Amino acid sequence: MSYQEMLAHLPLFSCEPTQVLIVGGGDGGILREVVKHSCVEKVTWCEIDGDVVDAAKQFMPSVAKAIGNPKVELLVGDGVAFAEKSKDNSFDVIIVDSSDPVGPAEKLFSKEFYVNAERILKPGGVICSQGECLWLNEELIATMVQDYGACFASAEYATIQVPTYPSGQIGAFMARKRGGKGEVSCRWPVREPKDMELRYYTPEMHAAAFALPAFLQRRLEAPSKKRRLAWQ
Amino acid sequence: MSYQEMLAHLPLFSCEPTQVLIVGGGDGGILREVVKHSCVEKVTWCEIDGDVVDAAKQFMPSVAKAIGNPKVELLVGDGVAFAEKSKDNSFDVIIVDSSDPVGPAEKLFSKEFYVNAERILKPGGVICSQGECLWLNEELIATMVQDYGACFASAEYATIQVPTYPSGQIGAFMARKRGGKGEVSCRWPVREPKDMELRYYTPEMHAAAFALPAFLQRRLEAPSKKRRLAWQ
Repeated sequence: MSYQEMLAHLPLFSCEPTQVLIVGGGDGGILREVVKHSCVEKVTWCEIDGDVVDAAKQFMPSVAKAIGNPKVELLVGDGVAFAEKSKDNSFDVIIVDSSDPVGPAEKLFSKEFYVNAERILKPGGVICSQGECLWLNEELIATMVQDYGACFASAEYATIQVPTYPSGQIGAFMARKRGGKGEVSCRWPVREPKDMELRYYTPEMHAAAFALPAFLQRRLEAPSKKRRLAWQ
Repeated sequence: MSYQEMLAHLPLFSCEPTQVLIVGGGDGGILREVVKHSCVEKVTWCEIDGDVVDAAKQFMPSVAKAIGNPKVELLVGDGVAFAEKSKDNSFDVIIVDSSDPVGPAEKLFSKEFYVNAERILKPGGVICSQGECLWLNEELIATMVQDYGACFASAEYATIQVPTYPSGQIGAFMARKRGGKGEVSCRWPVREPKDMELRYYTPEMHAAAFALPAFLQRRLEAPSKKRRLAWQ
């Protein structure tokens, strides 16, 4: 669906990835999109609940069809702990397909996770996380872009239309690690889809996702209302 | 709200309007946006139900606040009949803020209405109509863009996020009459907002509204599946 296509292809088309980490996304939908990129050599997939993966294989075969792909290493475990123990400069792209920031996914919306995510990205690498709804979660979005994003070269919010989600919208928090050679913003794709079956993503949709309603644009351009964090 | 800002400002910023026709929009929300454009000299407002206008004044004063503006002529009556009897080349912009194409609004989604709308627009003038939801009404959108749009210089669909509408989305059908001097597409605004209170519309949002999901873009680029109409 539109959510999975956009959450995967926004970061993947923002660079030329070979090493990709997926955190969450137990249904396999993000994975299905990632393996459409022939440049990707290895996908490390860290999903906390192996039963979700098994259920997806059994009941949603069209979503789960890339599970078992030889490029994929599935690690059933906590993505926050995995990021803590991973080596510096390991991944070109990290995609976080999590549930909302309550319960199991709460730590995926913490500053500690983003400090580790930045560390384990390669220079110029991109993290793209489920970034909640612009109509309902303005405060959280501002915190992610302004505070968690401060240690990155760029931090942006991109909007995704999803008809079955509350308010018909969800977003992607996207940040690029310093030290890359290309454009800092993730707004302009650096590659084009080729021989991919895509129902939603186009390079135009990629760029358009970064156009935000005036009220949100003003909020994200204004100085952070939060106390600056120690690591910034 | 986002719907009213976008439906009004998409066509208004696509040209330099002096004469504007609003069909429908009984709550006054479109009117409120139209009178923010100082270049607009006269607004002809054709609303079929005077009771809606009265109720909006009484119960929704912030939406209805431009009702009574000296630039506005309110005509309580049928917009389809008004378009039939209007003179050629009368309006720079026509905005149709209608309900869905069943019951009273049905004829506003007919080829006959668009033939008259094209006739009463000035050369280069723009019509912008409530264009239904891309997730639910692909067939209707294709008919409007490909069939009703065929007598115009351009015909496009622009997407608007509205959290309270079904699927969180509605669209604008936009078409420009032949004979203008500028850009044919309505995608690129020709003026910028100045001293307007806008919560949603920006020039970036304007351009981004024309980026459509791959499945809809392919459908609108494909030859019409409908029988070509006699007047094309």
